[in-house]
Amino acid sequence: MSGILAKYAPYLPITAKTPSLTLHEGNTPLIFAPNLSEKLGLELYFKYEGLNPTGSFKDRGMVMAVAKAIEKGSKTIMCASTGNTSASAAAYAARANLNCFVLIPEGKIALGKLAQAIAYGAKIIEINGNFDDALSIVKDITAKEPITLVNSINPYRLEGQKTAAFEICDELQDAPDILAIPVGNAGNISAYWKGFTEYYENGQSAKLPQMYGFQAAGAAPIVRGEIVENPETLATAIRIGNPASWEKATNALQESNGLIDEVTDEQIVEAYQTLARSEGIFTEPASAASLAGIIKQRRSGQLETGKKVVCVLTGNGLKDPDTAIQYAKFKPAKVESSYDSVLKVLYAHAGEKNETV
Amino acid sequence: MSGILAKYAPYLPITAKTPSLTLHEGNTPLIFAPNLSEKLGLELYFKYEGLNPTGSFKDRGMVMAVAKAIEKGSKTIMCASTGNTSASAAAYAARANLNCFVLIPEGKIALGKLAQAIAYGAKIIEINGNFDDALSIVKDITAKEPITLVNSINPYRLEGQKTAAFEICDELQDAPDILAIPVGNAGNISAYWKGFTEYYENGQSAKLPQMYGFQAAGAAPIVRGEIVENPETLATAIRIGNPASWEKATNALQESNGLIDEVTDEQIVEAYQTLARSEGIFTEPASAASLAGIIKQRRSGQLETGKKVVCVLTGNGLKDPDTAIQYAKFKPAKVESSYDSVLKVLYAHAGEKNETV
Repeated sequence: MSGILAKYAPYLPITAKTPSLTLHEGNTPLIFAPNLSEKLGLELYFKYEGLNPTGSFKDRGMVMAVAKAIEKGSKTIMCASTGNTSASAAAYAARANLNCFVLIPEGKIALGKLAQAIAYGAKIIEINGNFDDALSIVKDITAKEPITLVNSINPYRLEGQKTAAFEICDELQDAPDILAIPVGNAGNISAYWKGFTEYYENGQSAKLPQMYGFQAAGAAPIVRGEIVENPETLATAIRIGNPASWEKATNALQESNGLIDEVTDEQIVEAYQTLARSEGIFTEPASAASLAGIIKQRRSGQLETGKKVVCVLTGNGLKDPDTAIQYAKFKPAKVESSYDSVLKVLYAHAGEKNETV
Repeated sequence: MSGILAKYAPYLPITAKTPSLTLHEGNTPLIFAPNLSEKLGLELYFKYEGLNPTGSFKDRGMVMAVAKAIEKGSKTIMCASTGNTSASAAAYAARANLNCFVLIPEGKIALGKLAQAIAYGAKIIEINGNFDDALSIVKDITAKEPITLVNSINPYRLEGQKTAAFEICDELQDAPDILAIPVGNAGNISAYWKGFTEYYENGQSAKLPQMYGFQAAGAAPIVRGEIVENPETLATAIRIGNPASWEKATNALQESNGLIDEVTDEQIVEAYQTLARSEGIFTEPASAASLAGIIKQRRSGQLETGKKVVCVLTGNGLKDPDTAIQYAKFKPAKVESSYDSVLKVLYAHAGEKNETV
């Protein structure tokens, strides 16, 4: 059984008419982190959603949304997106022989962010307006035309996304003590909580986790309790000033006795680099907000040692290689092409690290 | 049991002293391709190796090579590489707390190709020589110093790589009729054949597949029967003029009653785009050589219908997004920010495709 629709059918809004669509989304690694566990005094795991088919957690929700679109007879899906949502929508549309239209605001979009949507054959429409204008047009058109909206306000998206919580419980044979997750539009934290709750109520787990949500300091409306008009953070995937699932997220935090906190861009970059250099896991910058938050909680002493913590990593680092290069301040050692000159660099480096090669 | 060392231990050179290293490599999707199967008259599957932890099949061999390096007491690994090998080596070195040195030739390397190695904290050394000079220095240094070479001449690499054949047999409950694979250095085709043979000899599969290898026309030494001095192809991952595993590959082709053929860059690009647009699978350009070869064989009538074919897709399309944009000749539709002007584009596009939206 491949894909989340087949594997978790009893928990999903699947009928006899729902097509068995899949690109083998889900089944992503839950990676134990030996180095960071020791350093932080925790039993720390990463749910590496970057190994979904299009490189982000969005595939879980999209396969559900697109399957339901097919079920009701849609031949076209549509979204306003400049990143992961458009990639995922375009991939499932290609697979299912649907048209896919992606609306983007004019001007500021780096082409690289759209490479996947372009590769999968989506039709990109650039409007002379901002992102909110784009989303507004998508809502209006999909309300009146036989076209399905697949932005996160499509309720099937959260249904698919909750399956990540099931996978964590299946693998750990229970829920963890804490689920740490980046919060932007707040849909994913809401979906995980729904998943944990449903599994618990069905006796598939013995307990519920505490939900720890982390927003970027420049885009932290839930932390501050007010809309952020001009959200700013290098973690573009969570640069949201007015989350669509604000209320759902607040419920998840309260019901789970969890917490919401903010992390600075510096803390995000530190966590992003630590993840790659200490554990060999390369993520989108925004993904590292979960680890950044856990590090912050441990350093402040608010989070006690010994807890079993799962940090959600929402996207693959290959989505944004430029950030890796930029923050590493990379310069290769340049040497003569000879045994001795290379060996000298090797031992110099080992010396820096104060150890033998 | 996560990772190939744990899952396939009886088939691997593992001792009581081999550490249980893993980034959850392997367990990659074998994706049935409904649209292309119908179009080509085959039962066609893709083994999508781009969902390995660093985005390519190299992780299977690297985890084995690095585990054996640790077992013999190495604290440092080293390779000459400008792409997937360096990414994989750097990730496992980070995980295992080893030093990783990557030698690259001067000048021509796009920084983007090294983004992963940089992110994982490898030390990059640029020599004033070409790739062969770099590999030669790596060989010399690792022969004399307590440093492990992890280029493909490390024999443990092929041992790890053969596990992909096991996974295919496990999933299909037998070997396929044909295994189609891109051929560059010829290590991977040799590893798959070793895997299929070992499984067959152990009674885990009832038959052996025919091995179909495909080289890029500008880098086809095995097809031509002679070294190519200046190999040229856009499929950089298989741009090799003198394959390291030439003899092993030739044996695999003969023993399996297989074939080796070449595909042009145009055929590779066509297959690369078809994969994304028809099946929603985004790969490195070189990966598409396997599908390009199968399409060529079908068009020429040399491959009969009804066969069960697995095409190996070696790497993730996110490794090289520029190629996707370049070949799509992408231009967004630019319109006013209004319901009517967007709707006009939608219906115009549906008209082009000769169908209702």
